[in-house]
Amino acid sequence: MMNVLVVGANGQIGKHLVSFIEDSDNLKAKAMIRKQEQASYFEDLGAQTTVVDLEDEIETIAKAAEGVDAVVFTAGSGPHTGKDKTILIDLDGAVKTIKAAEKAGVKRFVMISSFDTTREAIQEAPSSFAPYVAAKHYADEWLKSTDLEYTIIHPGILTNEEGSGQVQAAGEVARGEVPREDVARVITACLENDAAIGKEFQVVAGTTSIKDAVQSL
Amino acid sequence: MMNVLVVGANGQIGKHLVSFIEDSDNLKAKAMIRKQEQASYFEDLGAQTTVVDLEDEIETIAKAAEGVDAVVFTAGSGPHTGKDKTILIDLDGAVKTIKAAEKAGVKRFVMISSFDTTREAIQEAPSSFAPYVAAKHYADEWLKSTDLEYTIIHPGILTNEEGSGQVQAAGEVARGEVPREDVARVITACLENDAAIGKEFQVVAGTTSIKDAVQSL
Repeated sequence: MMNVLVVGANGQIGKHLVSFIEDSDNLKAKAMIRKQEQASYFEDLGAQTTVVDLEDEIETIAKAAEGVDAVVFTAGSGPHTGKDKTILIDLDGAVKTIKAAEKAGVKRFVMISSFDTTREAIQEAPSSFAPYVAAKHYADEWLKSTDLEYTIIHPGILTNEEGSGQVQAAGEVARGEVPREDVARVITACLENDAAIGKEFQVVAGTTSIKDAVQSL
Repeated sequence: MMNVLVVGANGQIGKHLVSFIEDSDNLKAKAMIRKQEQASYFEDLGAQTTVVDLEDEIETIAKAAEGVDAVVFTAGSGPHTGKDKTILIDLDGAVKTIKAAEKAGVKRFVMISSFDTTREAIQEAPSSFAPYVAAKHYADEWLKSTDLEYTIIHPGILTNEEGSGQVQAAGEVARGEVPREDVARVITACLENDAAIGKEFQVVAGTTSIKDAVQSL
């Protein structure tokens, strides 16, 4: 059984993810949430919960990561929050979570990034979006510089459509939409397949089953 | 003769710095400015100028750095600008300048940082200041991970008082004020003394001559 700390569990992807993890025979979720009143949703799914804020110290996050086998970072201030949160959550919160994983001896780390976090994407982004892209860029760079067994997922334009269970996933794909539900399924599939280790890929809606898409990364 | 690209030349420290560089027998300044109308101040001092925005591409900054022997990064959105600029200038602008220096084959790099950019300082900063501290933290970390011959200067509370030419400089000093004019003198002294290479230090007003303070780093 693989225990998975879901950082940002109360987000829209996170909620789907904890549900899929609990549906899996091989995975078990520990939902990291900011407020105690968010706990019941996850407890009803059978998941553990832990109340930690990403602005807390690394030590506090590391305590939440103790005894788990994988960490998924799907927290995000989102591109539309105050720009102060962009750097404190999307960059510093991510790096603190990475350091916490290392501290707790967790090897596996799955990062939910933005569709394109390359240098070029920062330069080309509209000025309101560029800070978010930059924050995600540096978080991804930080993760890649560690010895963690990482997977970096770059989803397309997120929608609340029902998932189809089918995607297109590769290093580079044409920009397009993808349901949050399917992104959560992709994360679950990555946790269940070592073929995803050391991989970084974009994912949009497509015609390949998620299992096959992850297997052929 | 050592040619020095001053990034952020039109800032308050930058203006003093270009003046001190031009006063030195061993140094020559190239002022990197954002607007052509800022050029005359520097040309009157005898300095070269180049118009580049830190939000431009690395290639553009690298062109400005071609043929110089050292780069000083003293640009800053400051702690009171929009938080979007904090990440785009204080972090991404700094990293782009570092990469530009590497690209242009410049070895020496002097970074003007904030007084305390440690992990602890991010955690303890008031929430309005924390994003700025985080941006400077990651910029400093990036620089230290390179092969550049860096110096990282952490000045205390900056004032517009006339400089005394005397400071206290060490890895850690008690927080205090320091005139911008003296910070500019410290930068100049660091450029003129290889003892500053690979050093990171805090500096406040004190009783040691700047030359001696830099020599004994």
